[in-house]
Amino acid sequence: MPIVECVPNFSEGKRKEVVDQIVEAIEKGGKIKLLDSRMDPDHNRAVISFVGEPEACLDAAFAGCNKAAELIDMDEQKGEHNRFGATDVIPFIPISDISLEECAELAEKLAKKIGDELKIPTYLYGAAAKNPSREVLQKYRTKSFQYEQLKEAIIEDPIYEPDYGPKELPKAGATNIGARQFLIAYNIYLDTTDMGIAKTIAKNIRHSGGGLRYIQAGAMKIEERNCVQVSMNITDFKGTPLNRVFDMTKTEAARFGVNVTESEVYGMIPLDALLEAAEYYLQLNSFERKQIIEKRIYE
Amino acid sequence: MPIVECVPNFSEGKRKEVVDQIVEAIEKGGKIKLLDSRMDPDHNRAVISFVGEPEACLDAAFAGCNKAAELIDMDEQKGEHNRFGATDVIPFIPISDISLEECAELAEKLAKKIGDELKIPTYLYGAAAKNPSREVLQKYRTKSFQYEQLKEAIIEDPIYEPDYGPKELPKAGATNIGARQFLIAYNIYLDTTDMGIAKTIAKNIRHSGGGLRYIQAGAMKIEERNCVQVSMNITDFKGTPLNRVFDMTKTEAARFGVNVTESEVYGMIPLDALLEAAEYYLQLNSFERKQIIEKRIYE
Repeated sequence: MPIVECVPNFSEGKRKEVVDQIVEAIEKGGKIKLLDSRMDPDHNRAVISFVGEPEACLDAAFAGCNKAAELIDMDEQKGEHNRFGATDVIPFIPISDISLEECAELAEKLAKKIGDELKIPTYLYGAAAKNPSREVLQKYRTKSFQYEQLKEAIIEDPIYEPDYGPKELPKAGATNIGARQFLIAYNIYLDTTDMGIAKTIAKNIRHSGGGLRYIQAGAMKIEERNCVQVSMNITDFKGTPLNRVFDMTKTEAARFGVNVTESEVYGMIPLDALLEAAEYYLQLNSFERKQIIEKRIYE
Repeated sequence: MPIVECVPNFSEGKRKEVVDQIVEAIEKGGKIKLLDSRMDPDHNRAVISFVGEPEACLDAAFAGCNKAAELIDMDEQKGEHNRFGATDVIPFIPISDISLEECAELAEKLAKKIGDELKIPTYLYGAAAKNPSREVLQKYRTKSFQYEQLKEAIIEDPIYEPDYGPKELPKAGATNIGARQFLIAYNIYLDTTDMGIAKTIAKNIRHSGGGLRYIQAGAMKIEERNCVQVSMNITDFKGTPLNRVFDMTKTEAARFGVNVTESEVYGMIPLDALLEAAEYYLQLNSFERKQIIEKRIYE
């Protein structure tokens, strides 16, 4: 069964009753599973995450966007977080039995539906971007170019022509809809207090330091354990699997006579990321995932 | 969500229409998932396997047993496989979120229900055995002690007093109901053709050879790959996890300068067995299974 995660961000982090109503709208269809809902008053933003089958997630995201447009007036809204609209971003993330490309198609379907039916302009970003300049959201929705600036630009500047919906901004603003890979927060603890060693390892394993393509890494001092940690984001666990970054960290640490004491997944992780590691280390080279009993139950 | 596997064996391996009706009865409630159904005419036996929540599996097994009692007359039945009754054995096997002890309780509940409602004598075996002499089914239901012998013994010999049901045999015979761990068929391929090496490794890793407690192992020549294999049954993967037997095999092989080229799960495997290996090799020592997104969906 294909499973997608959807993490819409709404421009409301102060009025709990507003966020509650949006969550209620998202859950109303009864076909998605809510994972998390949190509000940040300083950013004046709520981040809601849920999972389910692709169409159920599309319907739930649409319902949330519809409710947000009803309750949030962008002419009144202020906060630290850059934003285009009441529903500011809606990313779709592949979890299992679905590709990033299929999530991009789902994003486009939702962008069209929101544009057509709610009359809200939509911009496709990330893996769903049609325009290469929209691949990185943070490059076109910036501190100095937000809802207020988009208001005029969407009418006058062809660069800001939306992918779907009207060429003018309603009070709900515009919505960025995209697809991206699941991000795994992954940390590896070392049996040393030497931050220099952790920094060297972090530099060597990360993409920017000539290391692994989908790894961002830094060094952290962990006071309560009296040790250091290599702290990572894995931005595409299919591209750079956990086992590869774990083994490389171990190898780099060994050069200093340092050992890995533990690794840690911070937050959620898709099952496939762990299965990949089990298959790798056990050399299960001909294994098929359908041999897993639970896969047969939930297929 | 607790998930159990149930693998009832029926004394019918020739008349397809009979087995079809038993399968239909098992599936009728619509709450279990059929994994497999196979007939063996020589043994005159059918093995059906399905999974689901404990109560759903109990109901499905009861329905299958009821139908088999209606369609199979043990006075007529002949075959190579030792048997006590139309429904000969019903093992319950823990798959996820359930213990062996809970499966034993489920077995006893079914044994009572079949005894009381279908008037079929039931014997509890395996981890569900109340009488230690019934722990190993093959020790009390033998080539020389089957349905025909039980017919008199159940009336006259206190040793054969059933755990539940009448002290006489109906034409459906008696049913053995039990609980056991999931058995994983696991093979490790070596980059040598030397059977002596494979035999030594198999001996060293298996329980009977002073090796790992829940491992049965032998050596096999694999002609089509021009290599040898250590062929195993893991009788309790929680007691002896895959990673332990894999690593020990690698170590024993290294002593001969031999490498592991691949390992193989033959047939099905519970998810937990693979997660255990992923956590072990990645040193995910504080990991909680509820961090897996799919666990949240299907909980």
